[in-house]
Amino acid sequence: MIILGIDPGLRTTGFGVIHKQGAKLRYIASGTIKSGEGDLPTRLKVILDGVAEVARTYQPDYAAIEQVFVNVNPQSTLLLGQARGAAICALVSADLSVAEYSPTQVKQAVVGTGRAVKAQVQDMVARLLSLPGLPGTDAADALGVAICHAHSRETLTLIAGADQGTTTAARGPLAGLRMKNGRLVG
Amino acid sequence: MIILGIDPGLRTTGFGVIHKQGAKLRYIASGTIKSGEGDLPTRLKVILDGVAEVARTYQPDYAAIEQVFVNVNPQSTLLLGQARGAAICALVSADLSVAEYSPTQVKQAVVGTGRAVKAQVQDMVARLLSLPGLPGTDAADALGVAICHAHSRETLTLIAGADQGTTTAARGPLAGLRMKNGRLVG
Repeated sequence: MIILGIDPGLRTTGFGVIHKQGAKLRYIASGTIKSGEGDLPTRLKVILDGVAEVARTYQPDYAAIEQVFVNVNPQSTLLLGQARGAAICALVSADLSVAEYSPTQVKQAVVGTGRAVKAQVQDMVARLLSLPGLPGTDAADALGVAICHAHSRETLTLIAGADQGTTTAARGPLAGLRMKNGRLVG
Repeated sequence: MIILGIDPGLRTTGFGVIHKQGAKLRYIASGTIKSGEGDLPTRLKVILDGVAEVARTYQPDYAAIEQVFVNVNPQSTLLLGQARGAAICALVSADLSVAEYSPTQVKQAVVGTGRAVKAQVQDMVARLLSLPGLPGTDAADALGVAICHAHSRETLTLIAGADQGTTTAARGPLAGLRMKNGRLVG
């Protein structure tokens, strides 16, 4: 199955596409969508069209998006919310169901601890996907979201009692986590 | 010309459609889009599809959306931001340029004072559009945004030196206001 991960932002939206077969993850693509310097509606359209194009190009089976931090500046929170709304709109318009994960859940899934720093996420994403070099931070975060979703689906399978992929889920960084309403709970 | 006004919200998005010919405004339609009780992506899709359907049905020439208050609760601000992002996405997807007005600008345009209360906005919207009764608050706000945009375009014409509609702009509640980057400034 193909999973699209999104790291939303008003200025830069990261995307990462991976392929999952059994317990094996394979890198397909990653990158960023820059919203430019236009007014807000124009920038939201760039995000909407950009994410839609990524979905059209890579035809993912599943999508996942990172939950965003509430900023100390309420105006920034509002802008970030609108950007995230645009990215989600592109995904649901492509008839994708959208899972949401917190940054802590993504770090937990990728690095094994929710307190990992960005460099650790980049490093582990590169290792897990056998990348020749480190991805940029936005692309790494997006790939991390996709990996998190790949693992969470394994956990779901584990709970459902199927035997496929259970070993990885039981041993991996997501061991012990459970799904609730499509979200991982610790 | 036909103007679509939007009052965004996560739970309820108000819309109002008016027709403007010279200085004369005529009511076409108004109503609300309820996002229901699903998860966030599902609710954003309801808003996206709902606003898109309104745009398809009434084929507006212009769209305008109200700026939202930053809530004391940052999480609410984030949710509201995403809802507003979804509404804007529907408008830009319909190839509409989207003007933004603050609640103060809308009240100023409709009632004549930025400190008007909701009941005054409802009352003045009903008078300006010769409605047989008071519209609901969300629909009234949305119609108010559309009226505000109708007036602001007159002001723009005034600045550009054209003679059409200048009298109304000079005398109306928007007299003295100026356009800057598509937004009214006091």
